Amino acid sequence: MKYFVKTIAASVMALSVPTLTADANEQSIREYTNKHQHHIMKDFRDLLSMPNVSSSVDDMMVNAAWITDYIHKRGFTSEIVTAGRAPYIIAEKKVSGADKTVLIYAHFDGQPVEPANWATAPFTPTLLTATIENGGQVVPWDQVEGDFNPEWRIAARSAGDDKAPVIALMHALDAMEQAGISPSVNIKLILDGEEEAGSPTLKQILADHRDKLEADLMLFCDGPMHQSRDRQLVFGVRGSMALDITTYGPLAPLHSGHYGNWAPNPTESLMKLLLSMKSEDGKITIDGYSDQVRPISNAEREALSNVPNVDTQMKHALALAESVGKDIRLEESVLSPGFIIRGFQAGGVGKQGRNIIQPSASASINMRLVADQTPEFLVEKVEDHVRAQGYTIVHEEPNADIRRNHAKLVKLDWRAGAYPAFRSRLDSPEAVKLISILDNMEGNKTILAPSLGGSLPIYLFEQALENMPIIILPVANHDNNQHGRNENLRIQNLWDAISVYAAILEQYGTD
Amino acid sequence: MKYFVKTIAASVMALSVPTLTADANEQSIREYTNKHQHHIMKDFRDLLSMPNVSSSVDDMMVNAAWITDYIHKRGFTSEIVTAGRAPYIIAEKKVSGADKTVLIYAHFDGQPVEPANWATAPFTPTLLTATIENGGQVVPWDQVEGDFNPEWRIAARSAGDDKAPVIALMHALDAMEQAGISPSVNIKLILDGEEEAGSPTLKQILADHRDKLEADLMLFCDGPMHQSRDRQLVFGVRGSMALDITTYGPLAPLHSGHYGNWAPNPTESLMKLLLSMKSEDGKITIDGYSDQVRPISNAEREALSNVPNVDTQMKHALALAESVGKDIRLEESVLSPGFIIRGFQAGGVGKQGRNIIQPSASASINMRLVADQTPEFLVEKVEDHVRAQGYTIVHEEPNADIRRNHAKLVKLDWRAGAYPAFRSRLDSPEAVKLISILDNMEGNKTILAPSLGGSLPIYLFEQALENMPIIILPVANHDNNQHGRNENLRIQNLWDAISVYAAILEQYGTD
Repeated sequence: MKYFVKTIAASVMALSVPTLTADANEQSIREYTNKHQHHIMKDFRDLLSMPNVSSSVDDMMVNAAWITDYIHKRGFTSEIVTAGRAPYIIAEKKVSGADKTVLIYAHFDGQPVEPANWATAPFTPTLLTATIENGGQVVPWDQVEGDFNPEWRIAARSAGDDKAPVIALMHALDAMEQAGISPSVNIKLILDGEEEAGSPTLKQILADHRDKLEADLMLFCDGPMHQSRDRQLVFGVRGSMALDITTYGPLAPLHSGHYGNWAPNPTESLMKLLLSMKSEDGKITIDGYSDQVRPISNAEREALSNVPNVDTQMKHALALAESVGKDIRLEESVLSPGFIIRGFQAGGVGKQGRNIIQPSASASINMRLVADQTPEFLVEKVEDHVRAQGYTIVHEEPNADIRRNHAKLVKLDWRAGAYPAFRSRLDSPEAVKLISILDNMEGNKTILAPSLGGSLPIYLFEQALENMPIIILPVANHDNNQHGRNENLRIQNLWDAISVYAAILEQYGTD
Repeated sequence: MKYFVKTIAASVMALSVPTLTADANEQSIREYTNKHQHHIMKDFRDLLSMPNVSSSVDDMMVNAAWITDYIHKRGFTSEIVTAGRAPYIIAEKKVSGADKTVLIYAHFDGQPVEPANWATAPFTPTLLTATIENGGQVVPWDQVEGDFNPEWRIAARSAGDDKAPVIALMHALDAMEQAGISPSVNIKLILDGEEEAGSPTLKQILADHRDKLEADLMLFCDGPMHQSRDRQLVFGVRGSMALDITTYGPLAPLHSGHYGNWAPNPTESLMKLLLSMKSEDGKITIDGYSDQVRPISNAEREALSNVPNVDTQMKHALALAESVGKDIRLEESVLSPGFIIRGFQAGGVGKQGRNIIQPSASASINMRLVADQTPEFLVEKVEDHVRAQGYTIVHEEPNADIRRNHAKLVKLDWRAGAYPAFRSRLDSPEAVKLISILDNMEGNKTILAPSLGGSLPIYLFEQALENMPIIILPVANHDNNQHGRNENLRIQNLWDAISVYAAILEQYGTD
C-alpha cells in the first residue's frame, strides 16, 4: 500500500491541474492496474523468459508467435513479416468512430548477453529489491503476497529495453474496457525484432509495407525516461555507427623480456592513434568531424532549460566525481556528436597477464551522430585523420608483406548498421496535443527533451512515412542497465506505462 | 642425412680451430645422437605430455617423479624438496677422480596455456614441418622413418622453455658412456618447478639446501639462443616485475548513447596515464626511473660488437617495418630497462563489441629491470609519477565513496614475484675456460651476450652461493614462441644440446 500513499500525496500537490473527468478515468486505470498486478507481472515474465537475441531467428519467431497470440486477444489483426532476417510484427486494431490513427513502435529483441557477468540468469526473470549495483536481493516470486513494492526491479534481458510496451499497452486496453472507456483512435503497431542489431532489414520492411503504416502520429516506445522519473517526451535520437581499429606489432606473440624495448608494441601505437582523436577535455579533434552538426534551436534551448537538472544526483548514483564537460548538462551533452571507445582488447590482465608483446591490438569505437551528420561524411573525416597521423589504412587483415612495408599500418573495420540521427520539431500541433494530454495527468509537468543520447532507426520512418510526426515516449527507468548486465525494469514504471498509454488512447482522437 | 652434409661443410670451413681429440669425441657423440633419434624423441615426448603449470602442485609432482626416475637411471642421487609450493629437484652424480663440480640449473614448469589459441594441443607434443606462423604442417609421429628433418619442430608447452635440458643432459651422459668418454667433473642439478611463476619459494629452498649446491661453476640452462643459431653464452638477465593499473568510470556499465560525451570513460584516462610514461620514440619518461642503471662496460661493448647483427633478418621474420629504437640493436636494447604494456582489457571488440561505457579499464605492465635496479626503487618512482599526473593511488578495489571523491583515481596492483637483474663478468677464469671449450667445437665462434632480455631468478643464486661464477647456456631456438601459443623446439637444437653438454662434462674438469 506504500504506493498509494505516494500517489495520493502527489495528487494533492497537483490538485489544480487535472480535469475532473481525466482524474476519474485515470483513477479507474490505476485501480485496474493495482488489482491485476500479479496477472500483468505473469504476462511480462512469460515474455521475458524467451531468449531474444536477434541473430537467432528461431528464437525471435517464438517471441513473435507469443506476441501475436497476446495482441489477437485484444482484437488486433496482425502479420509477421520478414525481409531475410528477424521477424517484424505489423498489427492494427480498428476502433469504431475513430478518425485518427496512432502508430506505435516498440522492439522485442535484446542485446547479446554474457551470462557469466550477470548476477541472475538473463532469461529467468527475477525479482530484486533494488538494482544489483545498489545491493538488490532476490525475492522469490512465490513469496510476494498482495502488492509488489513499486521500487523493486524485474531483472532480465529486455526488461527495460524493450519488452514492457507491448505488455503495458495490452493491459491499458484491458483496463479501459473494464472501466468502460473507449479508445478515441485506431491503433497500429510495428514491432521490431532486430533493433539491437541496427534493424538491418527495416528499410526493406518499410518499402514493402508502408501502406499498412499510415497514421496521424507515430509514437516510438523505446529508450529510458529522464533520471528525475517525471513523464517525458523526446523529439530526437542520435545516430550510431561503430568502427573497429587494429594496429600491428610482430607477426607472432613475442616474449616481452627478450624483445621488450626493441619490438614495436601495437598497444602503444593504438593508444596514441586513439588519443589523437580526442582532446584532453574530451572533445573530438578530428578535422571537420563536426562540420555537419545542426545547431541547437531556441525552442530546444528553452526545453533544455526546463528539464530538471539531475547531474548531481546522477554523478552520486554512478559514483562519478565529475562529468566530462563539467559545465555541460547531460541533456545538452547528447546534442553533440559522441566518439566513445567502447572496447579495447590487447592481451590479458591480472591472472590472464602473460609476458607477451601482442601481434596486434584492437579497439572498438561507438560514434553517436547528431542531426544532419551522415555516416559517409564521418568515414571520410576519420580516414583523413588517420592518414594524417602517418598511417596506411587497410580494410582487410594485412598479410606479412604489407606489415613489413608499413611501420604505421592500421585496419579500419566499419561495422554494419550505421545510421543517422533524427530530430523533430517541439512545436508541431501533434506535439502540442500530446504534451497537453500528459500534462493533464497527475504528477509533474512533462519533460520535453530535444534528443535522446541513444539511437533508434527513426530516420527510416522519417524517410518512408513522409511528414508523419514522430515522437518518442519512453517508459523504462533510466537505471535499467540497458545493453549491460543485470538489465532491469522498476516495477512502478510498468504500472505508470499502462496509465500513460490509456490516457493517450482515450484522448488523442478527441477534439 | 641432410644434417651431416651441413655439418661436414661447416667443419671444413673451421678446419684450423678444433683439436683432433675433441673432433673425434665430438663426432662420437654426434653419431650416438643420430643413431638414437627416435629414442631421445620418445623420452622428450613423454616429458612434454605431462601438464606443468606450477600452480598445480599435483601436476608438478608427476613431472618431478618422472624426472627422478629418469636421472636415477644415469647414476644420480636426488631428492624432491619443497617450501610450501611447487617441487624442486636437487641431484648429484659423483664422478671418480673429478676435482671440480658443475652445478646445472633448468626448470620443468611452464607458462599457463590458453588451448583455444593453440593450433595443436599444448600437452600433446606434435611434430610440425615448421613453426605455425611459417605454415608448419603436422607430421604424424608414426610416419617418420629414419631421421627426423632437423628443421622440424616439436610443438608443446615447455618444448622450448625449459624441458629440453634434462633430456639432452641425460643423453649426453649416455652418449659419453657408450663412446667410453668419462666426465671430468662431478655434476649437481637444481631443477626448478615454479620458474614461470617467478620462483616464489626459491629463496627458501636455497636457504634450506645451500650446502648441497656448492660447485665451481653454475650453468643456467634456460632461455633462447641467439637468432643466428650460433652457440652462445650469456652473462646476465634482466629482472622482472609486473604492475596492473585500473582506472575508473561509472559504477555500473552505461549505455554509450545515453551517457556518451558526459560520463568519463576509464579507457581514455588509462590510455593517457600509460602514454604519460613513454615518449613518442618509446623511451621511459618516468622521472628518476633509470637512475640506478649500471652503465655498459667496455668488455660488454666489445662483446656486443662481435655479436652477429640479426636485426634485419628478425624484422623480416616478424614482419616488422622497423624496431623501436631504430639504430639500437636488439642485443644492446635489452641492456636498457623495459616498460612493456603486456595487456589491456576494457570491453569487447568485433562481435564482442557492445555499446557500453565501462565501469573500469585495466592494463598490465611488465617491467624489465637491468643490473643494479631494485624493484622497491621503481615502485617509488612509478607511484611518484602517477601522483604527479594528479592521481590518487589505491591498492585495493575502491568503494563508491572513494570513487565519488576522486576524479582521478587509480588502483595499482604490484604483482607478486618481482626480482632484480643479474650481470656477471665476461673475463673471469671460469668464463674463459668455458668459452674455449665451446670455441673448440665445430661451428662458428661462440657468441658472448652481456645479457638476455628475459629474466631468470639468478640474483637469488648470486646472493646464496657467494662468489660462484654463474653463466647462462641456452639451447632453445630463438623462435620457440616461449610463453606464447604454439611453443616449439627446433629438432636440431635438441641434438646440438647433447653435444654441447657432453663437451663441457668431458673437458671442464681437465687442466
